[in-house]
Amino acid sequence: MSEYTPLSAVGEFGLIRKIKEKIELRNESTITGIGDDAAVLEPKEKQVVVSSDMLLEGVHFDLTFCPLKHLGYKAVAVNVSDIAAMNAKPTQITVNIAVGARFTVEAVEELYEGIRLACESYKVDLVGGDTTSSAAGLVISVTALGEAAPDQLVYRNGAKLNDLVCVTGDLGAAYMGLQILEREKQAFIANPDMQPELEDKQYIVGRQLRPEARMDVIYDLKERGIKPTSMIDISDGLASELFHICSQSKVGATVFKDNLPADPQMLETAVEFNMDPLTCIMNGGEDYELLFTVPLSAYDELKNHPDITIIGKITEESEGVNLATKTGQVFPLKAQGWSHF
Amino acid sequence: MSEYTPLSAVGEFGLIRKIKEKIELRNESTITGIGDDAAVLEPKEKQVVVSSDMLLEGVHFDLTFCPLKHLGYKAVAVNVSDIAAMNAKPTQITVNIAVGARFTVEAVEELYEGIRLACESYKVDLVGGDTTSSAAGLVISVTALGEAAPDQLVYRNGAKLNDLVCVTGDLGAAYMGLQILEREKQAFIANPDMQPELEDKQYIVGRQLRPEARMDVIYDLKERGIKPTSMIDISDGLASELFHICSQSKVGATVFKDNLPADPQMLETAVEFNMDPLTCIMNGGEDYELLFTVPLSAYDELKNHPDITIIGKITEESEGVNLATKTGQVFPLKAQGWSHF
Repeated sequence: MSEYTPLSAVGEFGLIRKIKEKIELRNESTITGIGDDAAVLEPKEKQVVVSSDMLLEGVHFDLTFCPLKHLGYKAVAVNVSDIAAMNAKPTQITVNIAVGARFTVEAVEELYEGIRLACESYKVDLVGGDTTSSAAGLVISVTALGEAAPDQLVYRNGAKLNDLVCVTGDLGAAYMGLQILEREKQAFIANPDMQPELEDKQYIVGRQLRPEARMDVIYDLKERGIKPTSMIDISDGLASELFHICSQSKVGATVFKDNLPADPQMLETAVEFNMDPLTCIMNGGEDYELLFTVPLSAYDELKNHPDITIIGKITEESEGVNLATKTGQVFPLKAQGWSHF
Repeated sequence: MSEYTPLSAVGEFGLIRKIKEKIELRNESTITGIGDDAAVLEPKEKQVVVSSDMLLEGVHFDLTFCPLKHLGYKAVAVNVSDIAAMNAKPTQITVNIAVGARFTVEAVEELYEGIRLACESYKVDLVGGDTTSSAAGLVISVTALGEAAPDQLVYRNGAKLNDLVCVTGDLGAAYMGLQILEREKQAFIANPDMQPELEDKQYIVGRQLRPEARMDVIYDLKERGIKPTSMIDISDGLASELFHICSQSKVGATVFKDNLPADPQMLETAVEFNMDPLTCIMNGGEDYELLFTVPLSAYDELKNHPDITIIGKITEESEGVNLATKTGQVFPLKAQGWSHF
């Protein structure tokens, strides 16, 4: 499209109408979506889980390298990830966005196209929200709702002595992807004619720009009849999330350095940047993988699972949270979360 | 307090801890609040309503004249107002805030004190959210949840021919309050030694800074056994909301100019500003009163109600949406919403 429409040409109601046109409702529990003072849901005998997260331009994303469609997708995915971490099924989302005057209708539609794709992929219904102007950058605030039978929910506080500690996918890639994007941005600023060098970095860059909530693993575990004893999603880094599980479950944990799942592209890139790959794995944020514990009895079922790695075991609380090496050395871990301030 | 603590001194987790300490959970349907990946609710046989709104500094509020405690209260109230407009009982909220580096821990606590007061006043539970940094101004995004038996919910589309059109409280005051605050801000910028002249404007300024959701009227109508046929909250002005009800209900409406409820302070101030009071009443935003329709049979019960005014009646769709004067003149209304763009 070569013509762009200023937001003022369609107004708030016109914009809502355009967005609403493309919405499909998929969940039985969605009684009414957008169009009244509030959406109406009927979860029946299910429990409802609610989680909310806000992404701000200049803090959580940089529009220089983050395409709006990916951003819309990511805003939904990171919230669905919280629902996944409760072992619940995501059902509805509300989306509040604030956009500056420089935004066109087409740009907002692109953002909502990403939101729509994520809704399709995770089978959630966009049921409400707010579209307003921003005096500064783009802001996206998403609230996700999900459902589960009460006995299916998994909390952070259920890890038990001798449980296996598991993670999905691989770790540290989203963080290294961000380093690549920052480097290419600096190179572009220095020389706008330069083409970005991303060919051999597509996996890690994709992990940063378009993370997925691991609903696939949630559905897979359910099929296998395995219910985790505790679970959390990895948004702030493995170490920090492991501390949450251990402190809330009143247990300790030992993870084995050699078991930690890493993608070769992440490892190469860490070396390229003179960074310790272990630090990226333990403290790199935004992987949105799941960290969970299962009873020892699940070992045979999970030991060769393509998307799940057993990385350690739950110990007595007094033993603390540790990293063990092949040679038997044990290092206490530090909770080094991702500080926004 | 003379000492201020930078946010970096307590960090995100420290801040969440401080906020969490003061939270009380009041609703039976709240199973788990803050502390896991998501809050857990159990609405049982009830339907759940969800609404979400975002307030941005420089667009929706001005910290020059809006105290943080009031702002926190208002952010909750405007969302509860949407739940009220569904004839539901508010039960939970999630709050996402983004604050700039200039904010102190004490300032964030002041904001949350307002949120806590609103939670207390509306008996809702703060069950989740996000506290992050902002590269620009303060952003508050609230999602409110409520509950109602399915047959108790009131939508925008249920108004019937000959229904009475009612509003709560008075209209236009929040808009005039904003004009006063803007004037005093300009005066202050011109002469910082000048004291603001707000003594005789307290009511309208209060309506702008600290609106209330009309849950009192919702509970009162329930006690009287009156269920509105349609309802909406007045955030964008009476005219705009009346159009929403009429278009969704496929009806027309006539409101009587002389019945429109206005506070004397609002009227005086409109004159002072050379503004048409009727325009303030019809198109002034942010009153957060309720506009609703009831069957004609409710007339006797409501005609002398201290907080409800019968302002008109529902007509055939073909008659349109009109304003009638005492002398019998009829003017078609225009939907002149509050455009953010």
